[in-house]
Amino acid sequence: MSILIKNVRLDGHKKDVYVEGKYIKTIGEKLTCLADEQLDGKGMTLIPSFANVHTHVAMTLFRGFGDDMPLMPWLQERIWPNEAKLTDEDVYWGAKLGILEMIKTGTTAFADMYHKVSSTAQAVDEMGVRGYLAGAVFDNFDKEARKKTIAANEADMKALENYGDRIHFVVGPHAIYTNSGELLKWANDFSKENNILFNMHLAETEGEVTNCIKEKGCTPVRYLNKLGILSPRLIVAHGLYMDEEEIGLLADNGVSVVHNPASNLKLASGLEFKYCEMKKRGVKVALGTDGACSSNNLDMVEAMKLAALIGKAWRKDPEVIPATDIFKTATQVGHEVLGIKAGVITEGYLADMCLIDTHSPAFVPNHNFISNLVYAANGYCVDTVLCNGKVIMRGKHVEGEDEIMERASKCAYNLVRR
Amino acid sequence: MSILIKNVRLDGHKKDVYVEGKYIKTIGEKLTCLADEQLDGKGMTLIPSFANVHTHVAMTLFRGFGDDMPLMPWLQERIWPNEAKLTDEDVYWGAKLGILEMIKTGTTAFADMYHKVSSTAQAVDEMGVRGYLAGAVFDNFDKEARKKTIAANEADMKALENYGDRIHFVVGPHAIYTNSGELLKWANDFSKENNILFNMHLAETEGEVTNCIKEKGCTPVRYLNKLGILSPRLIVAHGLYMDEEEIGLLADNGVSVVHNPASNLKLASGLEFKYCEMKKRGVKVALGTDGACSSNNLDMVEAMKLAALIGKAWRKDPEVIPATDIFKTATQVGHEVLGIKAGVITEGYLADMCLIDTHSPAFVPNHNFISNLVYAANGYCVDTVLCNGKVIMRGKHVEGEDEIMERASKCAYNLVRR
Repeated sequence: MSILIKNVRLDGHKKDVYVEGKYIKTIGEKLTCLADEQLDGKGMTLIPSFANVHTHVAMTLFRGFGDDMPLMPWLQERIWPNEAKLTDEDVYWGAKLGILEMIKTGTTAFADMYHKVSSTAQAVDEMGVRGYLAGAVFDNFDKEARKKTIAANEADMKALENYGDRIHFVVGPHAIYTNSGELLKWANDFSKENNILFNMHLAETEGEVTNCIKEKGCTPVRYLNKLGILSPRLIVAHGLYMDEEEIGLLADNGVSVVHNPASNLKLASGLEFKYCEMKKRGVKVALGTDGACSSNNLDMVEAMKLAALIGKAWRKDPEVIPATDIFKTATQVGHEVLGIKAGVITEGYLADMCLIDTHSPAFVPNHNFISNLVYAANGYCVDTVLCNGKVIMRGKHVEGEDEIMERASKCAYNLVRR
Repeated sequence: MSILIKNVRLDGHKKDVYVEGKYIKTIGEKLTCLADEQLDGKGMTLIPSFANVHTHVAMTLFRGFGDDMPLMPWLQERIWPNEAKLTDEDVYWGAKLGILEMIKTGTTAFADMYHKVSSTAQAVDEMGVRGYLAGAVFDNFDKEARKKTIAANEADMKALENYGDRIHFVVGPHAIYTNSGELLKWANDFSKENNILFNMHLAETEGEVTNCIKEKGCTPVRYLNKLGILSPRLIVAHGLYMDEEEIGLLADNGVSVVHNPASNLKLASGLEFKYCEMKKRGVKVALGTDGACSSNNLDMVEAMKLAALIGKAWRKDPEVIPATDIFKTATQVGHEVLGIKAGVITEGYLADMCLIDTHSPAFVPNHNFISNLVYAANGYCVDTVLCNGKVIMRGKHVEGEDEIMERASKCAYNLVRR
């Protein structure tokens, strides 16, 4: 399979891009190579697709179901009772809906953490994107529950081996306040043995930090350090409350952090994410949307704008986090964190890319394309998406999108009513 | 002229809405009245259109032209030298582009402040929206300049009398740090005599407040109070830095405040806008995008999300500024502040409305339409727009949009190059 993209803007110049198999083979001018398919890039700008490094994709089913509520009543009254009723089919259609939303807004790779991981894998496989999927791992400090969740996790990893190279199992204990130190150490060993990523929530709220100090005698990052589980395989989501020394520990141990500005704001977790400080110290910072239940969409373009704007505002410095920087975070760094050779448009890299339709007010005038993309546009400026060398959206249309919206909608309504 | 909208969702129910002339005449079920035009509302939800109560519409020409810069170098190096070169034609096409963007994202009324107000009026007239237009009024504390700017202002008001009832002249001295107390008092008298609105920037930055205290011996609101110019005709933009007593002064004198979250964040002016405190004290708070130069778009849906999210985050309270509240602010209150009988869908009100296309992931599932609109969607979910009883966008297409984007683009490039 080969694709030739003609006359597309790339870094300010008109180019042709030839894709062979999964990879970008040639970037040049007036390429004449024969290809199975030719895409007209006129009026379009080519960018690498986004990596959404923290979400709970099937939670699209709960979009708008209990907003403007404090965290605990929301979880206890709205989310947990309904999650207990989730079927494989619910998660499958919920994941398809979330992936549809991500494709439509230019994301082709994501890191997930949710129940019924096989159903999510099935959805990822069919939709043509890349999923780094963790199940829901909770031991609640209970020995029996620990055995159970470990066994489930091992079974999930096995189940995901049936899928191709776009789907990767990740070990994902939920958080330090829902899992024992033993479980966390097991997860670290398990990720090492199987050479997989290790994904968890960390330092998301002030309460988590206060409780950690009370219960473990130190802050969350120091606690993980004591357990000996800081490593380059570890990706922590949120990381809002960290001091300079903790940022140093993350940097020295190669841990990555995922910033989720929308959910941090909406749940009022906080806004002073230390993006600049982490980057300066050498921590890899990626970007995520979190689940559609708390963000409430999976649009990485919006996540870029929020991250840049909030970062400027709380520091009272309009020069920090410029558009080009947050764009690199959402594309190149996100893919690096997941270990994907994508996120830049370069020969030899995977053909995971988007054609942006610049024929819209957000891109007029086009003094600065990246600024327009980050500050003026939103994810729905994406026209065409390629992942792994295949076209998965064309002219803003994804195959089967009507059925996905209809089925996911039915699952969602039935779920909260049954 | 009459329009019948069939089978549209309104407040959760399927309704027909009959528009006669400029007004909503009948809302009911299975209406059979004959109309000049029938719109199919299937799959659509009807909402009042938005009022963008603070912008500089022709500044779309400078979209993305100098981002991530501190305020003064940005103004001195990028904006002011280019604004000095603006022609009538530039402002006309820049305004058309901005109005196009507003229509596409559901806004039909706006308050503006910019150079060459007649050119903006011409654009408003042709595009079919409502404009409350102030010229650029600066006396820079100079007597001769004051005479000149007053004369120009009087001429502008005269010029705008040639337009119909959608176009209103507003007196708009830029700010307290660019205009003398004499000019501000003149503006207040002028607005009273002519029964027009009085629009200005106020308390936008900490620096403005510090300087005001130094130079006038008090904070900005107290300074206006001393001048005797607080009145229900006054609309202040930004109002970020105000204490409780100042909020009380605004409330007691019927002054309205416009919150501009995107530009407050991007220029790092600050984020602690006292939305809840003002509303509690009885101040009318409206919402704006500010100019596309600092926000960088004119999307009121995005402005709603930003206002709600930031308000929750800095207060550490996820329950404040719920979606329904900020939606009311962006529609009903915005129109009230401008004195327009619109912003709600009620018989007898002006037919300024949008049909929202809910066939998109942001609205699936539709547990809560207003939550989906505010937190998950963006302005490009708007499918059809009516203003003053006329359809001004249909199926996401505005007549002449290609020419507007092309001409505005040319003006913008020529401007910064000449």
